Amino acid sequence: MLEADFKYIIDTFFTIFAMTLIIFMVPGFAMLEAGLVRTKNVSAVLTINVMIYAVASLAFLLVGYELAFGGWENQTQSIWAFFMFQMAFVGKTVNIMSGGVSERVRIIPLAIFTAVMGAVIYPLVVNVSWGADMIKGTLFDIEMYDLAGSTVIHSTGGWALLAAIMIIGSRKGRYVDGKIRVIPASNIPLVVLGALLLWIGWFGFNGGSVGSISTIENANLVAKTIMNTNTAGLAGAIIAGIIMYVRYKLLDITMILNGALGGLVAITAAANFYDMYTPILIGLVGGALVVFAVPVFDKFKLDDPVGALSVHLVNGIWGTLAAGIFVESISFTAQLKGVVLVGIFTFSVSYIVLYLINKISNFRASDDNQLEGMDINECGVEAYPEFKRAI
Amino acid sequence: MLEADFKYIIDTFFTIFAMTLIIFMVPGFAMLEAGLVRTKNVSAVLTINVMIYAVASLAFLLVGYELAFGGWENQTQSIWAFFMFQMAFVGKTVNIMSGGVSERVRIIPLAIFTAVMGAVIYPLVVNVSWGADMIKGTLFDIEMYDLAGSTVIHSTGGWALLAAIMIIGSRKGRYVDGKIRVIPASNIPLVVLGALLLWIGWFGFNGGSVGSISTIENANLVAKTIMNTNTAGLAGAIIAGIIMYVRYKLLDITMILNGALGGLVAITAAANFYDMYTPILIGLVGGALVVFAVPVFDKFKLDDPVGALSVHLVNGIWGTLAAGIFVESISFTAQLKGVVLVGIFTFSVSYIVLYLINKISNFRASDDNQLEGMDINECGVEAYPEFKRAI
Amino acid sequence: MLEADFKYIIDTFFTIFAMTLIIFMVPGFAMLEAGLVRTKNVSAVLTINVMIYAVASLAFLLVGYELAFGGWENQTQSIWAFFMFQMAFVGKTVNIMSGGVSERVRIIPLAIFTAVMGAVIYPLVVNVSWGADMIKGTLFDIEMYDLAGSTVIHSTGGWALLAAIMIIGSRKGRYVDGKIRVIPASNIPLVVLGALLLWIGWFGFNGGSVGSISTIENANLVAKTIMNTNTAGLAGAIIAGIIMYVRYKLLDITMILNGALGGLVAITAAANFYDMYTPILIGLVGGALVVFAVPVFDKFKLDDPVGALSVHLVNGIWGTLAAGIFVESISFTAQLKGVVLVGIFTFSVSYIVLYLINKISNFRASDDNQLEGMDINECGVEAYPEFKRAI
Repeated sequence: MLEADFKYIIDTFFTIFAMTLIIFMVPGFAMLEAGLVRTKNVSAVLTINVMIYAVASLAFLLVGYELAFGGWENQTQSIWAFFMFQMAFVGKTVNIMSGGVSERVRIIPLAIFTAVMGAVIYPLVVNVSWGADMIKGTLFDIEMYDLAGSTVIHSTGGWALLAAIMIIGSRKGRYVDGKIRVIPASNIPLVVLGALLLWIGWFGFNGGSVGSISTIENANLVAKTIMNTNTAGLAGAIIAGIIMYVRYKLLDITMILNGALGGLVAITAAANFYDMYTPILIGLVGGALVVFAVPVFDKFKLDDPVGALSVHLVNGIWGTLAAGIFVESISFTAQLKGVVLVGIFTFSVSYIVLYLINKISNFRASDDNQLEGMDINECGVEAYPEFKRAI
Repeated sequence: MLEADFKYIIDTFFTIFAMTLIIFMVPGFAMLEAGLVRTKNVSAVLTINVMIYAVASLAFLLVGYELAFGGWENQTQSIWAFFMFQMAFVGKTVNIMSGGVSERVRIIPLAIFTAVMGAVIYPLVVNVSWGADMIKGTLFDIEMYDLAGSTVIHSTGGWALLAAIMIIGSRKGRYVDGKIRVIPASNIPLVVLGALLLWIGWFGFNGGSVGSISTIENANLVAKTIMNTNTAGLAGAIIAGIIMYVRYKLLDITMILNGALGGLVAITAAANFYDMYTPILIGLVGGALVVFAVPVFDKFKLDDPVGALSVHLVNGIWGTLAAGIFVESISFTAQLKGVVLVGIFTFSVSYIVLYLINKISNFRASDDNQLEGMDINECGVEAYPEFKRAI
Repeated sequence: MLEADFKYIIDTFFTIFAMTLIIFMVPGFAMLEAGLVRTKNVSAVLTINVMIYAVASLAFLLVGYELAFGGWENQTQSIWAFFMFQMAFVGKTVNIMSGGVSERVRIIPLAIFTAVMGAVIYPLVVNVSWGADMIKGTLFDIEMYDLAGSTVIHSTGGWALLAAIMIIGSRKGRYVDGKIRVIPASNIPLVVLGALLLWIGWFGFNGGSVGSISTIENANLVAKTIMNTNTAGLAGAIIAGIIMYVRYKLLDITMILNGALGGLVAITAAANFYDMYTPILIGLVGGALVVFAVPVFDKFKLDDPVGALSVHLVNGIWGTLAAGIFVESISFTAQLKGVVLVGIFTFSVSYIVLYLINKISNFRASDDNQLEGMDINECGVEAYPEFKRAI
């Protein structure tokens, strides 16, 4: 057997493995968000998650893939495996965005935005960052290093979310008379399950982004990437727990998990480059950023029920810059430039598209519908019809 | 290293990977069904799912495997991996059947049927479809192509279910005075989690059924099979959502997920053969069939709380025939003949076996026990003892 | 390509695959325990599970790994993959221990113990059992065979738990006036989900412990190991079900699952050695031991809400001895000696460490806090705030 054949087979298999782990992020996001919102909005949030996977993936299959990778010939592994792996990424940007506008967003306009995101916006960002240099250089020149999407996925989703919150507004009753009403998560086991499935999916996300496991060097790189990814998550969880305990003598598990996710987002830009200790530092900062960012967004009345801005936008930026700080071969300036350019591009385009869609079909559910719950008004299906409500 | 050794190692590893994904369908079916039934029947449904995995698998290990594959020498990968992969399939046929008779079926007679299914009925169907030609040709002559079981698994489970519903009857209170009483699902997050785990498991089911990943051709085939499988699921979800929205302006997530599962069932017969667009068509038809079939079965008072007849029987048939329609090298007549022969065989044998078991130990729980719930009467364990019931 | 390179690449990939399956045991333990405890203690149990993964893993990364494997040069696969695989084991011993002291243990002292366990106690046990012979032979001489940790993981966790229960005591209200108050599990679907994720994780645990898949012999061994692991779980589930039905005419799903887990623990010592039928016997005994051991521990007022002593300690011992009984090349005396030495070592050291920590920060929550629930007092987060309590 030719060595090239061997590599092709192994790398195809490895990409299928990594892609499968990423698909576990579909139930991951769905369970996380279903646990974080109130029971009256759980079916809607779940419907949105399934819709995103279906619409974004199909839009990418029919249109987006060509835009992102059209000029790129990949002959080192099965094109179908490569496609599936890339397709598994698409929905994530919308997942990040949709989570943050939970409990008041209507599903149909969100589905339209999802189609645009999967067909056009995300593919363009991919193209200028990872793509075939067709549009890159023409549109703008990015030399940013971003292994698995601290910026391309997480900030992109975060910027789209920021635009969405500005257009859709906060949940009815969240900010009243200058006070923030605490709205507790309705199902903590689902939150934990979802966050842990995301964590595992991240192994595929970052490990698979190395692109090959079929040489000794790459096998080491994949393993190190996964180890570093995990380490940053561990550190993010621990620091969030410590801060919460020092402040309140209480260990808020939702904040601990968001701390872990913050660490995972931050390590994503360059998990393959770090030694085994740097991810601890990156994760500690990432987890701390989440804890400190959450109240800041609330101060600006940017209502984000799942903490997605703190986890994905803030840490996407931190992680991309951290790569420029801690990795000698990566230019901090290029990272900063990438962060800013992708930020401006994604925020502007998302804002315009969201604004236009909003004119056709209102994103925001009426106050009455919010009060009654999105489940009844959007889905006709209550999440837990037999359980009597205490509140 | 010999090329044959390399192939043996890779294919063994790949089969272990695919088998593991299929085992995720055990929690997949369990969560899906636990979410779809009423809270008073959740422990029973979960017990049934675990029982099926244990009894069907052990019956296959002790008896069924020999019947299905006895004459077949496989030396291209570890026999243990091949065995585990095949064993992972067995319970699925009973899962399909048991889901549809939820909320009134008693566990012990179902365990007896599971043993017969795992030891005899399913292995015979496998033998005449995929097996070693020992019985095939003697019993009846099937030339049907069925990659991963649109007929062998899904229709087989569906026919057994049809026989079971005819013998066991509908749930007490489901059809009263010519009206159908709507019985809502009790836990939507579990439904979504279960359906998505099934979806992921399908990658192993169909991808693994290619049988080898150890050549460039096969690596491409495996990747394409998984991609096509996924695409059909996406299309099934979308069409079910669209139909629900057009009809009711509501997005019923349980119907959307059943649409996705319908697409996945339909693509299973020949996911390896299609180009990347045909699965969209097959999934669209599959998802639509689910939406339209559900009320038809209810019209005939075939009470199926999880929609298994629409998902597995109807789409198992559709998928098997679709292979004959869209793949040039597959004969439509052979497909139709296979569908009919397997249908007659499975329905008849299941009916007879179920009828005989029913004489010894009644499948149907008493009206009082149904009213009180299967959990207390069959398991002695309530699923959610601390949650106050609203209805 | 050199054969050694091929092996290195395949084995690295395989270890990553196996490690990933083990990480699924993190949500596995979390969901299992969250389902078994009362709703007022669910957030605390979940926080403990995430804390254990974070603290034990990081302690192992910073200190424990060197102690366990420091002198060992592994050049047959990526050191990072090997590290991640070993790290995935660490938390398990603490998971086993923490589950059994649920509903009254405080989190901060447990976090301190977790750090000691991950940094010192567990690594020492690993070293004398699997390690680099640095300490082994000096500390004490163990020739016990233990493929994937019937003793090294499960008994170790079990002995630590026994020490913990002796120090922390039983839950307030569990044993009153010589009577045992039954405290039912609060969420059966989570119990089932958790147990099944553990089951799947076990494939990685035991299969990965073979250490290599890159020869025909090893590929067969891995596949057989996974098959045997599964078979013992099946048999454990079935016997537990049969015993429950014979005794009570009821199928208690929590006992059936603990029976399965008992079988899985028992097969772990030598799943690679058995023929395909012996695991049935080992699992049947394992499952029966669980059913019979649960009331015995209660008789001694060793309050263990999740049955961890019966599942992990009793079956860890049974499995290690069974290897000496059923495998010709394994000495029963060596197994017995290993069980006793590891038992004495782990129990003593755990007892001392727990005792010392308990002096600094009380492990046991006050009676009032137990009554009110650990969630409010330790986490400030209720698990299901919107669901009205029935009891």
